[in-house]
Amino acid sequence: MKLTILGCYAATPRTLTNPTSQVLEIKNRLFLIDCGEGTQVQLRKNKIKFSKINHIFISHLHGDHLYGLIGTISTFSLLGRTTDLHVYGPKGIKELILLQLKLTESWTTYSLFFHELESKESEVIFEDQKVVVKTIPLKHRVYTNGFLFQEKPGDRKLNVEAVQQYNIHTAYYQKIKGGGDVTLDNGTVIENKKLSFDPIPSMSYAFCSDTVYNEAIIPIIENVDVLYHESTFLESEASLAAKTLHSTAKEAARIALKANAKQLILGHYSTRYDGIERFKEEAESIFPNVLLGDDGVSFEF
Amino acid sequence: MKLTILGCYAATPRTLTNPTSQVLEIKNRLFLIDCGEGTQVQLRKNKIKFSKINHIFISHLHGDHLYGLIGTISTFSLLGRTTDLHVYGPKGIKELILLQLKLTESWTTYSLFFHELESKESEVIFEDQKVVVKTIPLKHRVYTNGFLFQEKPGDRKLNVEAVQQYNIHTAYYQKIKGGGDVTLDNGTVIENKKLSFDPIPSMSYAFCSDTVYNEAIIPIIENVDVLYHESTFLESEASLAAKTLHSTAKEAARIALKANAKQLILGHYSTRYDGIERFKEEAESIFPNVLLGDDGVSFEF
Repeated sequence: MKLTILGCYAATPRTLTNPTSQVLEIKNRLFLIDCGEGTQVQLRKNKIKFSKINHIFISHLHGDHLYGLIGTISTFSLLGRTTDLHVYGPKGIKELILLQLKLTESWTTYSLFFHELESKESEVIFEDQKVVVKTIPLKHRVYTNGFLFQEKPGDRKLNVEAVQQYNIHTAYYQKIKGGGDVTLDNGTVIENKKLSFDPIPSMSYAFCSDTVYNEAIIPIIENVDVLYHESTFLESEASLAAKTLHSTAKEAARIALKANAKQLILGHYSTRYDGIERFKEEAESIFPNVLLGDDGVSFEF
Repeated sequence: MKLTILGCYAATPRTLTNPTSQVLEIKNRLFLIDCGEGTQVQLRKNKIKFSKINHIFISHLHGDHLYGLIGTISTFSLLGRTTDLHVYGPKGIKELILLQLKLTESWTTYSLFFHELESKESEVIFEDQKVVVKTIPLKHRVYTNGFLFQEKPGDRKLNVEAVQQYNIHTAYYQKIKGGGDVTLDNGTVIENKKLSFDPIPSMSYAFCSDTVYNEAIIPIIENVDVLYHESTFLESEASLAAKTLHSTAKEAARIALKANAKQLILGHYSTRYDGIERFKEEAESIFPNVLLGDDGVSFEF
């Protein structure tokens, strides 16, 4: 699982910082999460192949998470894309993109599917053989979802020595990998756990931005491997965070702790501060495993 | 008169090149012309004060001239702007911006006025004491206007020696600057040209992008001081230029020559070419005074 932060600063794009966008590579799928202005250039700078992105998830319709979407969709067309593109985001996103395409008289060269979200409960919005994506309802000034990306558990690993010892025919191997027991010709049942090893643990990633401190998300993201949680402010601006429905670094850490996350990544920093090291210090006073998100930084898990 | 090119490459923003946007400073007014994605960052990089921009002119609704507008409008709000902002562009631009503001539930902190354009004839769309702006109807795949910015002729310059010689009272000075003759107490009429010098010549700038080669614009831009004319292609792609309703560098030069422009600036280069020097060479084979527009370059006239 690899996460590339294209942008993780709040509000407006600036000379050296970019609004929210990130790419999650999980089980060889590339998911684009949020799409602030300049995302397509950040994709280029980070050498991410446009053609590998088939799913774009938009948390909410604030500009710093959205305004790069129409440009990205248009550029995909200019490059002659033919593969389907799926966009997941709050109701209204379809009208917005279609109006822009209509006014610019430029249709896409590929099929564009919108999956508009309205539910206030967590729901599965994407599922294929290897990955499931669920929404994480967040509390912000407009309708907002985080997204939980989960690898499905893979096959169990065959215990080659054991299956040979029991002289089990290869025809049974797939059944064993799927967790099934095997009955030998003499009627003896061999339990699966004697014939296979546990699969490689499946990874999960939760993206939570933008949101006020909200313990209601904890049951949804419990035990997540990697939690990206917005930390717009430091503790000194805690009341501003509450007022604007954003979080502080300490609050992000408190969510990570209570949700038993393995790793916390901070981001969505207000640009009022000189540097971001203090976000890490404040979060680490609550939760030990803190990484600082930053534009152009990649993390592998 | 100072022109700063924020971006002058066609189609999509890229790592090192930006779509169309430029700032014209004329008579201490700052006009933003077109607004491709990334314009607000280019304004920052070029140290242009957001607060000094009160008028934005959009030639047409293709993304590479438009997609940075909503972000620019939003950022002006986030920075607490209170001064009126006027946007001039094709019909539809108001609906597009208002829908985005509505969906993001973020209204502007300032009054935002739209001046939607539909006319196929050149028309005055802005006028104050010192500057007039007219449309230049262009031929492109969608409804498109170029813009002609003209300084109004200033006051005539007082011939101090002459007015003293005729012993003319200071009360007449404003009349003389305005071109009026003066009648002395003895009834003698002193012609204005004996009492004043011609004003500093007024400057004009024509922005023409995007357009196919179109001689119909020549009467509108005749004798312009500086003509920016798109040159998406080189001569080798002349048929592609005709097909996509763009121009070649030679065609831009031919318009400059026929319109008796003093200076031609090229831009809106297709990114298919290595470097832009050949655009200058091809244009100079037709017209002598050619400048290459490039991102971040300023010209003073």
